[in-house]
Amino acid sequence: MTRAGRMVERQIGVALWRQIADRIRLSISNGDYDATGMAPPETVLAAQFGVNRHTVRSALASLADEGLVTAVQGRGTMITRKERLNFPISRRTRFSQGLGNQARDLEARLLDHAQMPATREIADALGLAPGAPCIRLDLLSSADGRGVSCSTSYFSAERFPQIAAHFATLGSITRSFAASGLDDYVRASTEIVARHADANELVLLKLSPGAIVIEAQAINADLQGRPVQYSRTRFAADRVKLTIET
Amino acid sequence: MTRAGRMVERQIGVALWRQIADRIRLSISNGDYDATGMAPPETVLAAQFGVNRHTVRSALASLADEGLVTAVQGRGTMITRKERLNFPISRRTRFSQGLGNQARDLEARLLDHAQMPATREIADALGLAPGAPCIRLDLLSSADGRGVSCSTSYFSAERFPQIAAHFATLGSITRSFAASGLDDYVRASTEIVARHADANELVLLKLSPGAIVIEAQAINADLQGRPVQYSRTRFAADRVKLTIET
Repeated sequence: MTRAGRMVERQIGVALWRQIADRIRLSISNGDYDATGMAPPETVLAAQFGVNRHTVRSALASLADEGLVTAVQGRGTMITRKERLNFPISRRTRFSQGLGNQARDLEARLLDHAQMPATREIADALGLAPGAPCIRLDLLSSADGRGVSCSTSYFSAERFPQIAAHFATLGSITRSFAASGLDDYVRASTEIVARHADANELVLLKLSPGAIVIEAQAINADLQGRPVQYSRTRFAADRVKLTIET
Repeated sequence: MTRAGRMVERQIGVALWRQIADRIRLSISNGDYDATGMAPPETVLAAQFGVNRHTVRSALASLADEGLVTAVQGRGTMITRKERLNFPISRRTRFSQGLGNQARDLEARLLDHAQMPATREIADALGLAPGAPCIRLDLLSSADGRGVSCSTSYFSAERFPQIAAHFATLGSITRSFAASGLDDYVRASTEIVARHADANELVLLKLSPGAIVIEAQAINADLQGRPVQYSRTRFAADRVKLTIET
């Protein structure tokens, strides 16, 4: 192990294997291993990143958990999936259509819902008076059984009183809007930050400590420009790529 | 400290203070402390997050380094800056105009440049034949002396032979394009991922180990739709928010 490698290992402790996993993941998606379809041997990766084999093994185990690689007895580490799920953000952003045919099984599950008075932040986003009644939906979205994102959305309780019941039956915001008499809507604004997942997100998305989430704060509006939904969606950064259509 | 707090602290070691810093940063930008303009006392924050005061102090010290808070003798921790730099992504994305008047002093510095044959990835992005000559520019962008992003951009060497010399003089991609006879261009596509910074990014952006970068892979095109620039920009996630205009 190089001196720099040892220093990094000492400084950041358990997070090092994650960093190595990140770099191998990037090499996979860049196609660096396409010629053989295999990751380099552990000893080669250890030398390349200046870390010990134990760290490389932890990184590969985590990539195997994600379904990116599979250890093949006697052959090494095979690349089994190259890409992150690609989530498009455009004026016509729809969660389920967005992930389209990238997964066999897409699910958006209602974790919790409540009626509450709008905080200043929610009121500003939805164009309501502070304290006006709004409905909060907490959702967990998965693709082929793996958590992709968890989100919290707010709606005017006056305009969409049945949104939670609709969602529980229909499993889609678009269909719940339609059932509430709103046939079409567009993405008005999206703000993106990245940060470490908090304890709740780690549990919901089954992430390991130190994992990253991309948080998208978005407002959807009806075709008259009135806000209909304010949401904070936290994507598991390891599992998605956002594609912006401008 | 709560049992959950102790468990988190044991599991993720040195990264915990970063996680607490993330959460305080989010509270600051959400305006949770606007009433007083001060962060809560260390003991209150320690109880809120279920960690010890030492961890809270490390988190606050890191936020002070970022310029978000200032310790005021005898008074506590004052909020000195609320917002991350807001970087808009739209069809008209321009780095310098994008950050506009959010900083007094914007600088884009040429770190390195070279002519090289296009790899498959670069050739695909720029619509060139693999192996065609291209020019690589490595840039470091700062706002008021703090690193905001580092980027690597590729251009056709045939179409823009003087791009590096122009950038060295003009300090802007837009002006370097104009000097090369390209008066206007638009953002064709942007892909966004988030990951831990690598060793090189930690040094360039002066980040602490475990820090996150948002990587935007973008293609700019001329008004006839021909790609003119392929870039990979890594933003210091602590310091920026991307705003998508759709």
